[in-house]
Amino acid sequence: MAITNSDIPHVGAGTGGGDWLRRYWLAVGTTRELYDIPQAVRVLGEDLVLFRDLKGALGLLGRSCAHRGTSLEYGDIEERGIRCPYHGWLYDVSGRCLEQPAETKGSEFCHKVRQASYPVREQGGLIFAYLGPHPENPPPCLNFSPLVDHGGQRLVEDARHFDYNWFNFYENSADPCHVWILHGTSGYGRQSWGNRFFSIDDPPAFEPVETPYGMKIVMTKPGSEDGTQFVDEMSLGLPSILQVGDTPYVHAELDPQLGVNAGSDYEHLMFLTPNDDDHFMLFTVDYYTGPEPDIFERLAEIRKRELPTQEVKPYDKRPLMPFRGNVRQEDIVAQGTQDLVGLRAEQLGPSDRGVIMLRKMVREAIEAAAAGRDPKAMHLDENAEGLVKLDSFVGVRPAGG
Amino acid sequence: MAITNSDIPHVGAGTGGGDWLRRYWLAVGTTRELYDIPQAVRVLGEDLVLFRDLKGALGLLGRSCAHRGTSLEYGDIEERGIRCPYHGWLYDVSGRCLEQPAETKGSEFCHKVRQASYPVREQGGLIFAYLGPHPENPPPCLNFSPLVDHGGQRLVEDARHFDYNWFNFYENSADPCHVWILHGTSGYGRQSWGNRFFSIDDPPAFEPVETPYGMKIVMTKPGSEDGTQFVDEMSLGLPSILQVGDTPYVHAELDPQLGVNAGSDYEHLMFLTPNDDDHFMLFTVDYYTGPEPDIFERLAEIRKRELPTQEVKPYDKRPLMPFRGNVRQEDIVAQGTQDLVGLRAEQLGPSDRGVIMLRKMVREAIEAAAAGRDPKAMHLDENAEGLVKLDSFVGVRPAGG
Amino acid sequence: MAITNSDIPHVGAGTGGGDWLRRYWLAVGTTRELYDIPQAVRVLGEDLVLFRDLKGALGLLGRSCAHRGTSLEYGDIEERGIRCPYHGWLYDVSGRCLEQPAETKGSEFCHKVRQASYPVREQGGLIFAYLGPHPENPPPCLNFSPLVDHGGQRLVEDARHFDYNWFNFYENSADPCHVWILHGTSGYGRQSWGNRFFSIDDPPAFEPVETPYGMKIVMTKPGSEDGTQFVDEMSLGLPSILQVGDTPYVHAELDPQLGVNAGSDYEHLMFLTPNDDDHFMLFTVDYYTGPEPDIFERLAEIRKRELPTQEVKPYDKRPLMPFRGNVRQEDIVAQGTQDLVGLRAEQLGPSDRGVIMLRKMVREAIEAAAAGRDPKAMHLDENAEGLVKLDSFVGVRPAGG
Repeated sequence: MAITNSDIPHVGAGTGGGDWLRRYWLAVGTTRELYDIPQAVRVLGEDLVLFRDLKGALGLLGRSCAHRGTSLEYGDIEERGIRCPYHGWLYDVSGRCLEQPAETKGSEFCHKVRQASYPVREQGGLIFAYLGPHPENPPPCLNFSPLVDHGGQRLVEDARHFDYNWFNFYENSADPCHVWILHGTSGYGRQSWGNRFFSIDDPPAFEPVETPYGMKIVMTKPGSEDGTQFVDEMSLGLPSILQVGDTPYVHAELDPQLGVNAGSDYEHLMFLTPNDDDHFMLFTVDYYTGPEPDIFERLAEIRKRELPTQEVKPYDKRPLMPFRGNVRQEDIVAQGTQDLVGLRAEQLGPSDRGVIMLRKMVREAIEAAAAGRDPKAMHLDENAEGLVKLDSFVGVRPAGG
Repeated sequence: MAITNSDIPHVGAGTGGGDWLRRYWLAVGTTRELYDIPQAVRVLGEDLVLFRDLKGALGLLGRSCAHRGTSLEYGDIEERGIRCPYHGWLYDVSGRCLEQPAETKGSEFCHKVRQASYPVREQGGLIFAYLGPHPENPPPCLNFSPLVDHGGQRLVEDARHFDYNWFNFYENSADPCHVWILHGTSGYGRQSWGNRFFSIDDPPAFEPVETPYGMKIVMTKPGSEDGTQFVDEMSLGLPSILQVGDTPYVHAELDPQLGVNAGSDYEHLMFLTPNDDDHFMLFTVDYYTGPEPDIFERLAEIRKRELPTQEVKPYDKRPLMPFRGNVRQEDIVAQGTQDLVGLRAEQLGPSDRGVIMLRKMVREAIEAAAAGRDPKAMHLDENAEGLVKLDSFVGVRPAGG
Repeated sequence: MAITNSDIPHVGAGTGGGDWLRRYWLAVGTTRELYDIPQAVRVLGEDLVLFRDLKGALGLLGRSCAHRGTSLEYGDIEERGIRCPYHGWLYDVSGRCLEQPAETKGSEFCHKVRQASYPVREQGGLIFAYLGPHPENPPPCLNFSPLVDHGGQRLVEDARHFDYNWFNFYENSADPCHVWILHGTSGYGRQSWGNRFFSIDDPPAFEPVETPYGMKIVMTKPGSEDGTQFVDEMSLGLPSILQVGDTPYVHAELDPQLGVNAGSDYEHLMFLTPNDDDHFMLFTVDYYTGPEPDIFERLAEIRKRELPTQEVKPYDKRPLMPFRGNVRQEDIVAQGTQDLVGLRAEQLGPSDRGVIMLRKMVREAIEAAAAGRDPKAMHLDENAEGLVKLDSFVGVRPAGG
């Protein structure tokens, strides 16, 4: 099976990319946005319904009732599960059918029924699901350090929804050059630490580095003291996790001297989950262990000021205007107008070496998954506290280190 | 030709279901909604235009002009037919071309032209059409008793339009269990007669019964006097006609003792017509021969009170909310979220025996039609008055009867 | 290769119609509507971006950046070209890559990159492009007389956009009968000259005439003096150019005696450009060499009065209503509801002889293009002033002339 770039962006069952992604726990929702009603969610091309029964257990079931196909999105949530509105079949969170009110009492029929169901775990405000081939024995759902409370401050954003292929977003993180070009005039670049990495006139050096979990992009600039360098790393944890140098030094105009130590005390972790080939969700977790008591309030205020600064002329009807000045909008313009990888004509150069490394790694992972081998990076070592960290260093360290 | 459930929901020419439906007169409009302008209507996947010429004759023609294909929806209605706006070709209701203003006077060309046309009949406020293989010699358009005035009160509702497959609606009527489950908390169940059949705690017995015209569902509960039973029947007249136990005893809170006689004096007849695989129209006729002078006004008031009673929470963005409490909305949620029969995964049990019987009957009818035999139920016997009735009994009769 | 009508309406690369149209310069925009921002435009199924660099040069490039596929619609316009927002690649109007800010200074990589680009010419307020097989050596872009200033008054309308196949519009001009039928009650027919050609009661004679550039439709009526005739010609210059008898004698209620000379001093030239099979653009140029100083102001006032006169009844929900009374809306109803030529069932008669001639001519042109021969009408002879005219005579001339 020769895997090409064309296999990467597809997510349906039976596709190279889809079968690879199905080996992992994927974020499918946030605790805060899961109310006391069923939540329709599409994951890897499958229509599902996410809910929490009245005992507090999470369930992720196929959306169409196993009986006659009515959508469980309109089901009633009960103590023991969710009940289809049409004929009242009651399913527990594992997909077992507990009641069929129209059947004779004592009937064994319900024991033969299985509603499609997927294992679900909740962790630090995010809800993860496993859609893979071994639902009875899924791989461990990793204890991501920023998600498991150990004294810092944590912020989980509401899910953001995008209407283009997930890999356009993912590979963008293996491409540091866009930072100082696309985002060079954004608010980030006006800030004390950020202007070290957002300047097109004096861009940082960078190198992609293979890691056990995937890869990272290491950006460096000469430090303010001899023999030191400023470092900003972006990590890509396969299959679809990111940690970017999105720190208070970049965003919140904190004193960059705070970074002159073992690195940032701020983590910005992102989980991408494809809905289908043309849509994905993005979940972000910020975790901060530093001394600022109101870091997230400050960040929120700064974000509010980071609106697009671009003047829109009266005759300008381009649908994505304005975008300049707001990093998120800039990314949507750049990635959302790309075709799927593998379908686009491209000309890659040396500055694309991060993207090239990532695609090669993903092609190998797809191939390994297709061959029944463990793809790279399924496992992250836990630290002494049983936690898993993506080691994206942001801070100052000895030059050449 | 092995017919499966997958053949049932398709309605285009050349499909099993479509060729079967083409053997019958189908309702395509209502008298009240046909104004003095052409009415675009899609029937069994064909784009047509329905109109009444100035002499009063009804026509149902192909929508695209036989000349160069402009839509007759924008034609002018005249004494003798409809005139295409582009070059003024005039067609009568039978599709003959009467005038071609741009051709030389006396030209014979128009005699060679035939616009697609279908026989149309008007009956009691409904307009029926026959799209089948024998337009010159169509089968008789049945004299449905509720449509032919003989002294009672009649109410024809405006056409209702649905955006899902017609058979989801049709087979729902062969499934009485949904009544006390899906509709169990609706307004109907709060009413004096209705609560006999809408209670999930004490549901009625039921049995599907094959009939010459198709089948009926007979629901029974013990009567209030020894040796009697309450009966509520729903009849399915193939291919797409329904009469449901939708009576004033159910809806209008009339004294149920009125039913202690030969049965209801109220008929609620329904005609389903597919526009295409994903849309259908529903035409309903209510006919009442009892003593209440203002039965329809009362019914209208009751229907107005039967709004969904469900509270919609501020975070609830589900598109079909609210639905609980209104029988029509409840049906749309249950049927409109089902995939086409034959495409859905299903698990049918004993309580689905009505649906199972109906599908088998329809598969056999499709097979018979495909083989050139007369499918079951094309003909209904007329009674002494020349009328055809679907015999859905609603009332009280001797137990075991 | 047997060309049929089905080959005519398709415009994509590799289709008969598309490869034929690619041999010609096509109008793709107007000078007035091209602002200082990139303009997304779809031509013959290709997504392009039209812009003018800060030195004033026009460029028409592929919309997706050759690097990683981001849309140049969001690019920055600079002195030397357009710059992709993602990584700052700068392209000049000929598609050469001038800068790649993320690559090492002195890198030769950009010399290997070619962005898709097409030759563009500006003429009298219109912008033409050539999407054909010989971009280095395109055929000459014709000096259309109405577009090249030589003393008269010129009016270029903003591009009009239509959502149906371009050939429905084009062949409509080879069909004079629709004028007095479809448009018979329009404002045009109420006017002094127009009522000679817009009357269904007394229609003009007409004949299609083959010409070196394509064909013309010659409409005639007896003149007001013996031995004279009124003449109104519509010319079709292959592949997609029109000049119709859309003159002040028709529109502006000028004294028809003004036409009793060598013909109209008014030209109404139209250029059709397909966006894809279901959309096209129409560019119109009016050029007037007569004595009226404010001809276009008068015309604008008259057009404003030519609104649809049709009453729309409250129950009339037909989407294209009203249309009667406005020639442009009438054309949209007639053409916009037609299917693509070759897909529609049709019955053509003697009055369709203009359309029949046109289709035959286009089929032959497609066949010639496919065979590598020069199709009819690629070249128009220039007159002594180096100008090209479509000779649509409108005026009075000797009968039989």
